[in-house]
Amino acid sequence: MSTPLGNALIGQSGGPTSVINQSLVGVIETCVASDRVQRVYGAVHGIKGILEDQLIDLGRESQETLEAVAKTPCAALRSVRKKPTREECVEVLHAFQKHEIRYFFYLGGNDSAETAHILNEVAVAEDYDVRLFHVPKTIDNDLRVTDHCPGYGSAAKFVASAFMGDNQDNRSLPGIKIDIVMGRHAGWLTAASLLAREHEDDGPHLIYVPEQDFDLDRFVGDVDRMYTKHGRCLIAASEGIHGPDGKPILQSKEVDSHGNVQLSGSGALGDLLADEIKNKLGGDLRVRADTFGYLQRSFAGYCSEVDAHEARQVGRRAAEAATRDEVPHGSVYIERRGAAGEYEAGFEITELKNVAKETRDMEAGFLAGDNDIDPSFLDYVRPLVGNMPTAARLSDFPR
Amino acid sequence: MSTPLGNALIGQSGGPTSVINQSLVGVIETCVASDRVQRVYGAVHGIKGILEDQLIDLGRESQETLEAVAKTPCAALRSVRKKPTREECVEVLHAFQKHEIRYFFYLGGNDSAETAHILNEVAVAEDYDVRLFHVPKTIDNDLRVTDHCPGYGSAAKFVASAFMGDNQDNRSLPGIKIDIVMGRHAGWLTAASLLAREHEDDGPHLIYVPEQDFDLDRFVGDVDRMYTKHGRCLIAASEGIHGPDGKPILQSKEVDSHGNVQLSGSGALGDLLADEIKNKLGGDLRVRADTFGYLQRSFAGYCSEVDAHEARQVGRRAAEAATRDEVPHGSVYIERRGAAGEYEAGFEITELKNVAKETRDMEAGFLAGDNDIDPSFLDYVRPLVGNMPTAARLSDFPR
Repeated sequence: MSTPLGNALIGQSGGPTSVINQSLVGVIETCVASDRVQRVYGAVHGIKGILEDQLIDLGRESQETLEAVAKTPCAALRSVRKKPTREECVEVLHAFQKHEIRYFFYLGGNDSAETAHILNEVAVAEDYDVRLFHVPKTIDNDLRVTDHCPGYGSAAKFVASAFMGDNQDNRSLPGIKIDIVMGRHAGWLTAASLLAREHEDDGPHLIYVPEQDFDLDRFVGDVDRMYTKHGRCLIAASEGIHGPDGKPILQSKEVDSHGNVQLSGSGALGDLLADEIKNKLGGDLRVRADTFGYLQRSFAGYCSEVDAHEARQVGRRAAEAATRDEVPHGSVYIERRGAAGEYEAGFEITELKNVAKETRDMEAGFLAGDNDIDPSFLDYVRPLVGNMPTAARLSDFPR
Repeated sequence: MSTPLGNALIGQSGGPTSVINQSLVGVIETCVASDRVQRVYGAVHGIKGILEDQLIDLGRESQETLEAVAKTPCAALRSVRKKPTREECVEVLHAFQKHEIRYFFYLGGNDSAETAHILNEVAVAEDYDVRLFHVPKTIDNDLRVTDHCPGYGSAAKFVASAFMGDNQDNRSLPGIKIDIVMGRHAGWLTAASLLAREHEDDGPHLIYVPEQDFDLDRFVGDVDRMYTKHGRCLIAASEGIHGPDGKPILQSKEVDSHGNVQLSGSGALGDLLADEIKNKLGGDLRVRADTFGYLQRSFAGYCSEVDAHEARQVGRRAAEAATRDEVPHGSVYIERRGAAGEYEAGFEITELKNVAKETRDMEAGFLAGDNDIDPSFLDYVRPLVGNMPTAARLSDFPR
């Protein structure tokens, strides 16, 4: 086996993150520097762009433009939510052949890893030598194998900062406040709200993640207890919370081509929970709900520096592994290293099938009962969010 | 007239801002330094804390604590939404007499200015010498007299950064996206979304503010046109948009003691607009709505440095005017100075009645038709938000 001489193609897929373009630029700059790669192309809107022959030349971008793009949130190549059929994957392979693509990098979540995996099967069947790599990104942090996903640290920092502020807001004007956080299957992002809790009476006072079944009556009881105790109650809930039957609390009809139900882009779940509290505990209560929405994944000008750095490294690592003949295909994962209390990240390659399809829930040890997160989670998440703002209180010295 | 020797009392009222504690600390440090002020007290939860005799000693706080508090969003003294009756104002005055309060500072919006104004009338009637000052804050930017309000610049920066990111998000995964921005009566904050527009096809493509009557059918037509033109559509709408009859598009029953309808803390308006588009333009369209909610006023770790500095100055100016016998009562306002293109802020005092009660809409010159903001608004808002992130695009060089 030796690495072929040919062109590289890069695509971005799925929901944006704050640092996905760091990975993009990491792939581009490494490919440009490689003597195995002749041209570096980008597919506009991922797989869709390949099928429609919408390729652009990334090798001509200046370093200045690339650095500016790296700092810009969301997919600069533009993204797509499309799971290609096997027939479409054959078409994609023909496009590879036509454009002499010998290196393909797909930046995305587990669905993108699966696409790369199927493309590899098709390439093997057609005996076409193309190096296929998945470059992970997702604010959901729910990919397997990797310690954490590029994109998560920045989203977690956003969520934690939002809760830190909203805890002050709730303390300023006491009431019951529900904040809905992204996370379809896993509670990683919602759990980051725990970073906002410093004093014993700080919110979030209740944290609900999809790893635990959710029950509306129990929820109202929890809120009642916390409100009685603190005179206020701040609640973090994942958009994906569901009953014991696995059905989302908020059932919606809209489904994308991956079979995913629409949970984001609507305030309906928060409003439903707020109404439930008012109906059960009294209409006079000051109950509010915010749904953080797309801000968690695309807010400009606020990211985790650690996350930005790692996202760049993950892109570079994929392109290095591909062009240096390390393995013919795979997905990059992050390994947590360093002595106790010291954080260090290593970047390794795993097989595509290990990351494709299934997602990863939070470990049981990170959950505390059915309405909170265990403090041990803080050791996991703190290095990933990097520098956080601080919130200070007055001492309340008596007059 | 000479300034009396006595104690100072500070209260915070209304919705939080990112920098309201800068003003608080500005008042505290100036009072502590004054030889006219003996003790500096804080009222916990504003007027409510005075009526319930919940005062704390602010003069004993260390400079370190004060600086940390200044950087923390939301009312460190805790806030209140309460418009005291005249009888309660008499009670407040008796509390002033009891605690020898000769300097009172109320940090808040126009309702707080009105409270200070009524307190002054009561003080005059009872012949009690107390210096009463309103220290302005509001993310809505709708106070009269002042060029802009402390708190607005930071909220505007948050909104602009959110739109800058969401424009990239919408470009990555095209569809119709509605973002609801705070602003009950005035569109200042929603208008700040214009800062996100750089390229001709950048969003927000449509901006709706309460200064213009809103019509659902016209709205759907606007969206249809923009979606046809750009293949996507990003919309900024104020929570306070209303029909020609003045009734909010979303009528809600919850009203606070100032007679304000609940518009925030719910995703209902965004969802209503999204449903309207789907119903009229087709259920297959990818339509999403986010309501920015409390994040606009309380997000930790992201503010306008200009706004933070000015908020501190406004607090200092109020305390200086009070203790140096400049005027017996008033509200601080910001005057825009400096030659063309150069921004400079001056801090002056106006009468309480000039700020109380009524609010200020955006000038007609800042509006462009009924669905956009005039570019001249950018000259107004840019100096207030300070440093903004940048968003970069790939050059899309043809293959």
